[in-house]
This record gives sequence, structure tokens and C-alpha cells, in this order.
Amino acid sequence: MEQNVIRKALVTGGAGFLGSHLCRRLLAEGYEVTALDNLFTGTRTNIEDLLDNSRFSFVLHDVTRPFWGQFDEIYNLACPASPVHYQYRPIETMKTSVLGMMNMLELALKTKAKILHSSTSEVYGDPLVHPQVETYWGNVNTIGIRSCYDEGKRCAETLAADYRREYGVDVRMVRIFNTYGPSMHPKDGRVISNFIMQALNNEDITLFGDGLQTRSFQYCDDLTDAMRRYMELPREAVDAFCEKKGLGSPVINTGNPEEYTIKELAEETLRQLPESKSKLVYRPLPSDDPKRRKPDIAFAKELLGWEPKVSLQDGLAKTIEYFRKLGE
Amino acid sequence: MEQNVIRKALVTGGAGFLGSHLCRRLLAEGYEVTALDNLFTGTRTNIEDLLDNSRFSFVLHDVTRPFWGQFDEIYNLACPASPVHYQYRPIETMKTSVLGMMNMLELALKTKAKILHSSTSEVYGDPLVHPQVETYWGNVNTIGIRSCYDEGKRCAETLAADYRREYGVDVRMVRIFNTYGPSMHPKDGRVISNFIMQALNNEDITLFGDGLQTRSFQYCDDLTDAMRRYMELPREAVDAFCEKKGLGSPVINTGNPEEYTIKELAEETLRQLPESKSKLVYRPLPSDDPKRRKPDIAFAKELLGWEPKVSLQDGLAKTIEYFRKLGE
Repeated sequence: MEQNVIRKALVTGGAGFLGSHLCRRLLAEGYEVTALDNLFTGTRTNIEDLLDNSRFSFVLHDVTRPFWGQFDEIYNLACPASPVHYQYRPIETMKTSVLGMMNMLELALKTKAKILHSSTSEVYGDPLVHPQVETYWGNVNTIGIRSCYDEGKRCAETLAADYRREYGVDVRMVRIFNTYGPSMHPKDGRVISNFIMQALNNEDITLFGDGLQTRSFQYCDDLTDAMRRYMELPREAVDAFCEKKGLGSPVINTGNPEEYTIKELAEETLRQLPESKSKLVYRPLPSDDPKRRKPDIAFAKELLGWEPKVSLQDGLAKTIEYFRKLGE
Repeated sequence: MEQNVIRKALVTGGAGFLGSHLCRRLLAEGYEVTALDNLFTGTRTNIEDLLDNSRFSFVLHDVTRPFWGQFDEIYNLACPASPVHYQYRPIETMKTSVLGMMNMLELALKTKAKILHSSTSEVYGDPLVHPQVETYWGNVNTIGIRSCYDEGKRCAETLAADYRREYGVDVRMVRIFNTYGPSMHPKDGRVISNFIMQALNNEDITLFGDGLQTRSFQYCDDLTDAMRRYMELPREAVDAFCEKKGLGSPVINTGNPEEYTIKELAEETLRQLPESKSKLVYRPLPSDDPKRRKPDIAFAKELLGWEPKVSLQDGLAKTIEYFRKLGE
């Protein structure tokens, strides 16, 4: 490709939390960006600031249906990612993962586009190995209430791996661990949005169990940075890395390995919102409480020269700012 | 349903190894049977004896496309099941599992049919628990060369579980362990067909490693018997069983837990073919040799009042007879 030709990117789930950040980043780098979204969990608000940009297009489209167009790079991010959302529409969630992946792989194949697929730490399920390395196969229930997401995402990885092996499609996959930041859905039921919303509304901050269980939190900009580095690599470098590591297909963990207890997160939230009248309250641990997960990011460090840069303090400040404005 | 109304069954993969046996069994019980098959691994030969039966119809159809019709019971058996076949067409294999399941669940939903889905012991992958119980989540690679089959089948289970939970579809699933018998594909690359073909052709019988690794073998008629018992159960009994066992959806192992070494199988094959000039030869174990699997069938015993009845000696005799005629 010549230097002065504008590169074209397609972002599925482009009006979602992560998708909208990626669109913004690609536009900043000079791309022409098309965002697809069915607006099930994505919102127009997330991309409002981009609609005036002549290099940006939004298409209301569901990826379970084929989509055609000529792009240099496809970023497949479409899928409800919060249990609150995907358990509300389990079959549609599975279809989004699986049919969406099929449609995007077919598009990549026919137009010779590179494709980055956003997989998830949920493919590791309730992991028996800590921290999780990419070569770990996971521990996932096929018939539970979380299975639509976990198995849909696992199946999408398999499809991507087979399109790469069979047709030579240039697929790259990231397994995204817990990520937060502005544009998160305020009611997605995850701990960071819960705590901030509770603190802003002067409601009790609910901790389950003793609050000493740990979590790791990746700020959204660190993730988009990893994605862009990954897509910039020449294919040969990606292939050589897989060969060297014995990986059947290029899958790389992206996440922040620094661990905090839920109690520390609650305390930091209140420290940043000193005007809040919220107090910490403790409730019994629910039976399906997400298990501890922590990424091993050695592969990302080696292949992408990447590691997370945004501290929880800084990332939380930006996220609180976003939620505060949302409430105004 | 009134006693004297003919019950209608749909069998996907009806011209395949297991599907054709099931069609035969259903016809013997008085059903009207429609067999769907795309003839990728199924053959007309498998159902030749049924074509004259006025209660039998064969439709050349690929289950990745929707199919409509009114049936009381759907048996979803369509999918290449031997590594030789599914690794030749990995993407189509995945589509058969996933899209085929979606299409059949939609059919079951719209016509209020019961549906039995044939899952597989491969959902346990390379199991870390022996013998395998239905509550074990498995150990499966998402991006390897066997993943198209394993993950496709896992994903189909998830879909079935969600259609049951969300729409109340009356789904029942069997996880089928290694099964053999007449109508097996002579070149499917599995150990029983390999040994018989080698013995009949006076070729060396190839054992990998020391031949002391064990396998369990279920005769096809035992499996169709389990399937029929399962489908005859009232829905309430199935639901109550799931509740009692803490199963998210009705999945039952069917297989023969009796274990034989590969060497014992080779010796029994030669004992039944005394005229064969074949000798046992030993080769190094390949890296992707299927791991040991043995079903725990306590659930099937309790729910279905079922256990395998056909001995390896008897089943092998019938299978040898079939392969012998095939060669004539």
C-alpha cells in the first residue's frame, strides 16, 4: 500500500464502549473508519463527537447478517460483554459471536483484509491455572447461564484459527481481560461502574463477601494501544511468534496484571469522590461470583513491546469524570 | 397424542453410520421417518434397505440451511465425526454443528417437537477427570486442529441449553463415546475399522506405541436403544433429573465403560478372522493420539434404566461381517 493512501478500517461494535475508543484512535491516526453497531448495548452518545468527522461513518447493522465493503483492516468487537446484557439475550449473544465472526472472516477472506478479533479472558472460564497464559485451554461450562458468552467466544476463536489455517486469512486475536473507562455502560453491572454510580448517588457501596477478593483492571486506552500495535506488525512476525511459542493461532492476552482487592477499589473510588456520603456495606458472596483472573502478559510484552501504562488512580479519575458528566 | 396416530421423526445425518441405524430402529417401532443428509460422509448404501419402506423418506439437504416440516421428534445427528473427515473440512464441520443446531432448534421451537441432540465425549477434550462424569467441564483447546469438532459440539450444547432455558424447547442431549458397528465408514481412520480392514486385506495391523493404551467401545445398537429410551421419558422426569443432579441442561453420557487395550482389540479381530495373514506391527505414538476416555454411565443407568448389552466379541463379529460383504 502506498504511503499517501488513506487506510480504511471497519470496527464492528463501533458504538460500544471499547469500539468507540478504537474508532477515535483510528481517526486520530488518519484512518477512514466505518463503525457497525446494532445499538443493543452500544449507543449513539458514544460516537456523537465523531459524527462530524468526514472520515467517519456509522452504519446501523447487526453483524449476524453479512456486510460487504472494502477495508484494509477489520476490528471485530461486536458482542454484549456484560453478564447483565448477555444473559438477557443469550441466543442473540451466541449468534453475534459466531455468525458475526463468520461474516467478518468471509469479508476478510474475500477482500484480503487483515482482521483483529476481540476475544476475552472468559475463554479461560473458571481457570485452574494462575495467572492465565495463552496456552492454557480453560475450564468452561457448556450448559450454564454464562455459557452463551464463553462458548460463543471460544467458538469464534476456533473459526478464526480455521480460516487462517485453511484460507490463509490474516487473523490476530486478543483475549481481553477486565477493561474499564469512559463510555462504559453505567448499568452494566460490573464492579467499577457499580462503585462509581453508587458513590455519585450517595448510595451504599456494596461489597460481596469480605471484599478481599482481587481483580485486575485495564484502562481502555491501554487496550486500544495494544490492538493498534498488533495490527501494525507484519504478518511474518506474527506467524513466526506463533511458531516459536507453539500457538495454534495468534492469541495474545491484553490486560493489566496489577491486582487490587475489591475493598481497595471501593476505597480509592471514595478517596476520589470526597463529597460522597456513601458507606461500604458487605453482602454475602453470590454463587456465580466471577472468579479471580489475572493475565500473564509476557506474550504481549514480547510480541508487541507493550504493557499497560495507565494507573488505576488515573484511569479511575477519567472514568469518574465521565460518569459525573453523564449524570448532569 | 392418540395411540393410533403414526409418530413422525426427523433424523439429521440419517444416511450416516449412526443415523441409518436410528432410522431403522424408528421404522421398526412404527414411526414415519424422514432422513436428512448432505451425503458428505453419509451414503445412500447405508439406507438402501429402507428406501422401499413407504414410511421412510430421504431428503438430500444440508442442515446448515433451514429445513421445515412437522415432526413429533427430531434427532439431530448430522456432523462428520471422524478426524479424517472433519479435519478435511473444518469450517463446514463447525457450521454443521452450530448452524445445524440453530436450524433444528428453531424447527423444534416452531413446531413444538421434542429434540434429541447427539453431542460427543469430545466435549471433554483431553480430560483431567476419569472416568468422565456429565458435570465435568472438559479440557479443550480452542485453536487446534481438532477444535472445529470439539468446539462446534460444545457450542451446540450451549445453544440447546439456552433454547431450553429461554423458550422451553424440550431438548435432550447424549454425549456419545466411541461407537462402532456395521455402516461405519471403512476409511474413517478409527481403530476398529482400521484393524478389520487391515485383517481382511491381509495387511499388517498397525499398533501405535506399545498397544497397551485402553479404549472403550460401544456397539451402535446399544446407543440407539439409549436414545429411544431417553426420548420416551416424559419431560417432567427429565427436568426433575436435571434438578436433582444440578445439571444445567439434560446431558447424559452413553458409552460402554468396559475397557480394552488396543492390543486386545487387535488380537480379538484376528481371532475372529483366523484366515487372515496379518501380523501385529508397532509404530511410534503420534503426537495427537486421542487420549483415554471412559464414560461414567451412572446417570444413564439411573435416568434411562439403560446399560450397554452387546459384548465386544458379538459387536465385532457383526461389524466384521459388514466389512466382509462390503469388500465383495
